[in-house]
Amino acid sequence: MATPANSTNFSGDVWAELRLADASDVPHIHALIHQMAEFELLTDLFAATHELLTSTLFPSPARPPFTSFTALILDLSPSPLPAFASASNIASHRLDLSASPLADPEAAAFVSPRGGGRVTAGFVICFPNYSTFLSKPGLYVEDIFVRAPWRRRGLGRMMLSAVAGKAAELGMGRVEWCVLDWNKNAIDFYEGMGAEVLPQWRICRLTGTALDKYKGNHEEGSKTAE
Amino acid sequence: MATPANSTNFSGDVWAELRLADASDVPHIHALIHQMAEFELLTDLFAATHELLTSTLFPSPARPPFTSFTALILDLSPSPLPAFASASNIASHRLDLSASPLADPEAAAFVSPRGGGRVTAGFVICFPNYSTFLSKPGLYVEDIFVRAPWRRRGLGRMMLSAVAGKAAELGMGRVEWCVLDWNKNAIDFYEGMGAEVLPQWRICRLTGTALDKYKGNHEEGSKTAE
Repeated sequence: MATPANSTNFSGDVWAELRLADASDVPHIHALIHQMAEFELLTDLFAATHELLTSTLFPSPARPPFTSFTALILDLSPSPLPAFASASNIASHRLDLSASPLADPEAAAFVSPRGGGRVTAGFVICFPNYSTFLSKPGLYVEDIFVRAPWRRRGLGRMMLSAVAGKAAELGMGRVEWCVLDWNKNAIDFYEGMGAEVLPQWRICRLTGTALDKYKGNHEEGSKTAE
Repeated sequence: MATPANSTNFSGDVWAELRLADASDVPHIHALIHQMAEFELLTDLFAATHELLTSTLFPSPARPPFTSFTALILDLSPSPLPAFASASNIASHRLDLSASPLADPEAAAFVSPRGGGRVTAGFVICFPNYSTFLSKPGLYVEDIFVRAPWRRRGLGRMMLSAVAGKAAELGMGRVEWCVLDWNKNAIDFYEGMGAEVLPQWRICRLTGTALDKYKGNHEEGSKTAE
């Protein structure tokens, strides 16, 4: 059996659950996004706050999952979780750490709000996108992130498989996401899961002051014609 | 003054309107998507149908524009349009063709369902995306397309400016879209509008049979743990 989740050591059987997030997960989501920004060498773009995450990801009234921005949380538990059958469960997975136990130095900082000795180890943010060629919705995975100690244990595969399974079940035509072209490990992993990395498409982005200067632009257009 | 819209010749003043589409625009949207697939040399991916476009873009009850998949139509009119002030208007623009009249050989096939001599010349499909670093929604422009005879008249700029203006007005953090790396004209145009073309990001796509094989995957995971 695993040691308690508030210690830093996990061994034996550990139960992973991917579940729908709620507003109580915002502090962990915020911390995980910052870790991701560090990993991607993009901390200069990091501007997330608890308040913005709460209002944009968990508006009231709640939207059905996968119809708009959807946050999923990866929790790890040292004991089997009865909640696996709960409405928020997306996927579950038993991790056998008997051959290689792991130490999680951040476990105390990532105690899951769901309790029961659970530790939050990762997250997914996804939302529907649209393919005009298919004239069908798809699912765009904005982020999929696992904290460093929990990597290379099959959890990334479990999370992406679950999201792909959900998209297929909902009749969506595609699952898409982006990868940095220097992240060879990630590219190999994604291709191994059946994904195609499109070589020719580039992302264009209008943001900050370059975006602000269009504010009111279309209104002026309308006025001209009135 | 311009000649009637059911002819192939336009000269003098022509009024352009970018407006919210409705289900009556589906036949033209379908035809325009096919023209776009031909232009991008991607007709092998074209699988759009009138039925799918109607059910995915114009569900009942209608969703507020820019909160989900949103289709906009570019109509051209040989006479000033009182409808410019209508609720569906997004932007308007007067085109001065006196120096270089244009012939639209497809005008009869693209008579706008709004009547009044209008001709449909293009469309936009966009939907909200999400930046975790900003923890804000943005707007993703899936398609922006103008039929060949109407290009290089400032209409693409008008459409993208209007979408950017709408995003800025809604407090969104970014407007993003994709471009093919060989489409130098488009890249120059977008950069001229203040957009940055991100060199390092690549799109990953899971579709077709590679996606189908994940169907039910997450459910098996759940069952294992029950």
